[in-house]
Amino acid sequence: MKEANDFLQINLLGDKEQALRLNRIYNGMRAAGIEAAIVHSNSNIYYLTGRVFRGYLFLSLTLSAPIYFVRQPSTLRSRAGETVYRIRKPEEIAGHLCADNISTANVALELNTTSYTETMRIAHALGMEFPQYDISGVLRAARSVKTPAELHMLEISGEKQTLVYERIPHLYQEGMSDIEFQIEIERASRLEGCLGLFRIGGQEMELFMGNVLTGENADTPSPYDFAMGGAGADPSLPVGANGTIIRPGYPVMVDVNGNYTGYMTDMTRCFYSGELKEEAQKANSLSSEICDSLSAMMVPGAKASDLYMQALKMAEEAGMADFFMGHRSHAGFVGHGLGIEINEAPVIAPRSKDILSEGNVIALEPKFVIPGIGAVGIENTYIVESNGGRCITNAPSRPMQLD
Amino acid sequence: MKEANDFLQINLLGDKEQALRLNRIYNGMRAAGIEAAIVHSNSNIYYLTGRVFRGYLFLSLTLSAPIYFVRQPSTLRSRAGETVYRIRKPEEIAGHLCADNISTANVALELNTTSYTETMRIAHALGMEFPQYDISGVLRAARSVKTPAELHMLEISGEKQTLVYERIPHLYQEGMSDIEFQIEIERASRLEGCLGLFRIGGQEMELFMGNVLTGENADTPSPYDFAMGGAGADPSLPVGANGTIIRPGYPVMVDVNGNYTGYMTDMTRCFYSGELKEEAQKANSLSSEICDSLSAMMVPGAKASDLYMQALKMAEEAGMADFFMGHRSHAGFVGHGLGIEINEAPVIAPRSKDILSEGNVIALEPKFVIPGIGAVGIENTYIVESNGGRCITNAPSRPMQLD
Repeated sequence: MKEANDFLQINLLGDKEQALRLNRIYNGMRAAGIEAAIVHSNSNIYYLTGRVFRGYLFLSLTLSAPIYFVRQPSTLRSRAGETVYRIRKPEEIAGHLCADNISTANVALELNTTSYTETMRIAHALGMEFPQYDISGVLRAARSVKTPAELHMLEISGEKQTLVYERIPHLYQEGMSDIEFQIEIERASRLEGCLGLFRIGGQEMELFMGNVLTGENADTPSPYDFAMGGAGADPSLPVGANGTIIRPGYPVMVDVNGNYTGYMTDMTRCFYSGELKEEAQKANSLSSEICDSLSAMMVPGAKASDLYMQALKMAEEAGMADFFMGHRSHAGFVGHGLGIEINEAPVIAPRSKDILSEGNVIALEPKFVIPGIGAVGIENTYIVESNGGRCITNAPSRPMQLD
Repeated sequence: MKEANDFLQINLLGDKEQALRLNRIYNGMRAAGIEAAIVHSNSNIYYLTGRVFRGYLFLSLTLSAPIYFVRQPSTLRSRAGETVYRIRKPEEIAGHLCADNISTANVALELNTTSYTETMRIAHALGMEFPQYDISGVLRAARSVKTPAELHMLEISGEKQTLVYERIPHLYQEGMSDIEFQIEIERASRLEGCLGLFRIGGQEMELFMGNVLTGENADTPSPYDFAMGGAGADPSLPVGANGTIIRPGYPVMVDVNGNYTGYMTDMTRCFYSGELKEEAQKANSLSSEICDSLSAMMVPGAKASDLYMQALKMAEEAGMADFFMGHRSHAGFVGHGLGIEINEAPVIAPRSKDILSEGNVIALEPKFVIPGIGAVGIENTYIVESNGGRCITNAPSRPMQLD
């Protein structure tokens, strides 16, 4: 049994790793003219401490370390050199900072992710009538370039997700619906250590454990900004599997949760029983070729928009543009950054201004929805290195036959 | 195979049911001095249309029906009498309203759930410098009193969740960890139709499919405002099962997702192998007695705070106050409203100002964490009716022996 009664270090990362991440943020703050910030979303607290807790980190260019304000749990403790205040509400932050002679003027807040009510509450607690500075963009940019420790966690997730995907053919039984098949994949993922939670930035997108699509359902547009749609099992969650029976010859596209470490990889593969329709085989090969072409282009300094245009060009040359990233409804991107959340920077889209950097982690998912056939394509997660993208989701890219 | 190519009615509820819900909101708006509002969170769009889509509903006391602004999916269509505008961004809303001679002054927004950035974007799009009115409280109050159609969906969820709980003893195998046991319960829930998604209002609380607690792990405080804690499997999601092996005689508390219809019920039961420790049996009986006592008090007009005080009094009289709602860390409530989200009004807490109304749906979860024993107690979901709470999660309340 694990020890439950230990008090816990507030910073699980260690000083060196935390400093790496803080320095990225500090550089961004300097460039944006931000002197101090308060960070409190779960994803960003996790980024800066290696654990989720309820509270606030006060960051300042004039301090060497964050000041921690903890609401819950009560079991967090500080080590030498760390300042931790236990608070019950954000209104207590200003008093502590004032007593330490730290200015709360012009503190930047997480405006993209904090509700208006909560934002105003924190702003007022700090003596600001309205928030003047937004730390969201700085955090997003910092998080888009992963540290070696983060890359290691992503590699572990990629290895575990690959193991699960290689096991998927054995999970199928004839006559299964897409939902039944997905449930067995969910179970296999969880038994391999998948944490289940699928973290999505923002409030608009919702998904349970991923998306399994087969048949005509693949062509049902969804309200969410995922690459693929599907009607879902219920109008309260209109995305993904809808109970369609898996038929011989038709592809089943599996895109399920790769969160094994707090950092998520993203992988899609197609499966089939019987003999896969030729159109599906061709489209899967094209998807794989696009991944290879784009990953070779994934060098530091590359334009994200150039990658998208290359993918579109290859789809057009193959006569598949009408089916690229959907058919009745088209997703506006072919890839996305990921890590703690599934929708990080950079975005591989036609109007993206993002420039790739070494240490970006990007999922490429050139997919096709072919009427009468279904959804076809692969997705891999790559680390941007000096000579191109290195794949960390290394299951075979060909469609896999179900046992 | 389900038909994917149909266009979809934007309002799945039907006019009569939608009018019931709208009238509750209009009454709240009148009381709050709000003339018009824009609703766009997934939960509230689902409440007002019976489906989730990406877009906005414009509500006004001067209009008989909402005006719909749809971003995605493109497949939504209007029926006679419905006004639907297809838009790409919120900036297009004002133009349509202006053309229809509808004022956009003083429109209330969902300030409790919309990010600061998005709030300001919508406010500016409507010509407001800052939002002046908040519709969040009106929506929360309206949603806390369920319509007969909503109660029916909750009853279905309760029936399905009960079926799954009765099956739980058969899912156990000797030597299982809490996580392994939970995975089998997740699978059984999903096969019975559980949608998986666990909707929580706000941005602070995160949970996958629920919480399975055994042994000392039950006494590990969590950062989240759930009734119970647990260390979880990873510091990125510090709640619930942590790999503790289930031991004979010790309770396993199971509190997993009851979202079978878009409306969630909430139920907790304890399970054990071998012979359950006497302290656990007694605590479970006390929990069950508290539920019975409080549900009898659950009449329209009852004070939520009185229910909490009664639960605390019963815990005190039994000498169990130190273990009530936690031991090292205590939750500040014994029950909560629920429906589309797990944390709706009313809240059964000592300082709650909530007064119960007929049609409230409330989960009561008087639980105990006993050092050396673990977490013990039950949870049921009740509908507030004229003569008290009617339970809709009717699995046996006694601890159930694992096969």
